Amino acid sequence: MAGTDHSRRGDAAEGAPVFVLVAPQMGENIGAAARAMWNFGLDRLRLVAPRDGWPNPRAVALASGAAPVVDAARVFATTAEAIGDLTTTYATTARPRDLTKTVMTPEAAMADARARIAAGERVGVLFGPERAGLANEDVVRASAIVTVPVNPAFGSLNLAQCALLVAYEWRKQGETGPAVAREYAGGRPATAIEVDRLIAGLEARLDAVDFFFPAIKRPRMEANLRNLIRRMELTDADIRTLHGVFRALHGRAPGRK
Amino acid sequence: MAGTDHSRRGDAAEGAPVFVLVAPQMGENIGAAARAMWNFGLDRLRLVAPRDGWPNPRAVALASGAAPVVDAARVFATTAEAIGDLTTTYATTARPRDLTKTVMTPEAAMADARARIAAGERVGVLFGPERAGLANEDVVRASAIVTVPVNPAFGSLNLAQCALLVAYEWRKQGETGPAVAREYAGGRPATAIEVDRLIAGLEARLDAVDFFFPAIKRPRMEANLRNLIRRMELTDADIRTLHGVFRALHGRAPGRK
Repeated sequence: MAGTDHSRRGDAAEGAPVFVLVAPQMGENIGAAARAMWNFGLDRLRLVAPRDGWPNPRAVALASGAAPVVDAARVFATTAEAIGDLTTTYATTARPRDLTKTVMTPEAAMADARARIAAGERVGVLFGPERAGLANEDVVRASAIVTVPVNPAFGSLNLAQCALLVAYEWRKQGETGPAVAREYAGGRPATAIEVDRLIAGLEARLDAVDFFFPAIKRPRMEANLRNLIRRMELTDADIRTLHGVFRALHGRAPGRK
Repeated sequence: MAGTDHSRRGDAAEGAPVFVLVAPQMGENIGAAARAMWNFGLDRLRLVAPRDGWPNPRAVALASGAAPVVDAARVFATTAEAIGDLTTTYATTARPRDLTKTVMTPEAAMADARARIAAGERVGVLFGPERAGLANEDVVRASAIVTVPVNPAFGSLNLAQCALLVAYEWRKQGETGPAVAREYAGGRPATAIEVDRLIAGLEARLDAVDFFFPAIKRPRMEANLRNLIRRMELTDADIRTLHGVFRALHGRAPGRK
């Protein structure tokens, strides 16, 4: 598809989806949508017939740090023109339409978008005007519907929130970082030997004060205590802190057993 | 844990996380956070020392359909009191802290929350004030940090957006519906026999106009055409429409070959 007329376009949607706002009303909402996009690294914005014309200073003001996204937005008279160079578009809509259509969650849609973009497709997401949402005519142009699974008793996502969730899912699926990580502040995870020494030191102090009584309970008490300490995922700094705490509580280290 | 003093509380956080806004400034943001929560079915809101006191009419006004969430919000003087009855809390924060701590994505945190709640725990999520975010003192109270993976060049999620994303992940992980579904508008998927008849009718018409020429290419042409039609995932209504279209284009059905 490279080499077509569209390849000259600045927002040719290669590598990431274009967000297309159809007939947006308030400039503030365009700015907020641009911020939502840029929070997750998306910067290709297209507008179809914005109500208050274009450029719109309110959009720029609200976009703040995402103003370049607003500045680079391209404006079209019709949805057909706005998506003309795209191969797949998704229509975001909250309400069911009387159309036979695939309906996807934002997660599934962005997984689909990633697969298509990897195969060289150009993808866009359509967002309707603030109150009415997309007209059926625009939904029909899309390959599939995207619906955020909201509380059936209260679904009232605004334009920028909807853009935020779709952009979030886009980025999330490209994340290669771990979902759970540990941050270490000036320390490193303690080694098993360091933890063993901490436990041995503590048990020696506890023996000195006859903590493990009666003797028949000692194995269970030791196991619980060792488990508790091992569960703490201590750093080397934590180990030093705890050695200090035990020493402060009990005085000089007793002879090891 | 039932039977403690806390079990009398109306928002005892059983079955779903509590959202705790620490030192929120603008009532509008409290209202917007309540809306964000209720969009995804969460309704237990706690406030720590809201700047403008409580109740706050601006919060109620902005919450609109989620006003009951605001009305039921409980107010505490300190974070310690607000989370006193909880067993696990997550601290949302955008910036790294000089703390040794587990850092989770919203998705991983809400998966963890679901597992803990299923095991009878009471879970909360801490959100800091609009500008400064959570104080380190409050982050230290939490079991883990939650950070939304944003664009490193532009991460500017506001309070309500952060609440929206966490609430969205909570709900998403409880969804049992399919991620991709088909909606049928007054129709049902066509059967293979119906599709076969459509293809046979079309091919008969095409034969009548010598479409499959030269004969050596016929197998490939037929395969492409059949593949194209089978890919359409037609409904029974679509089948009738297409029979009509072919008839209109080519006149009365020719004799089958």
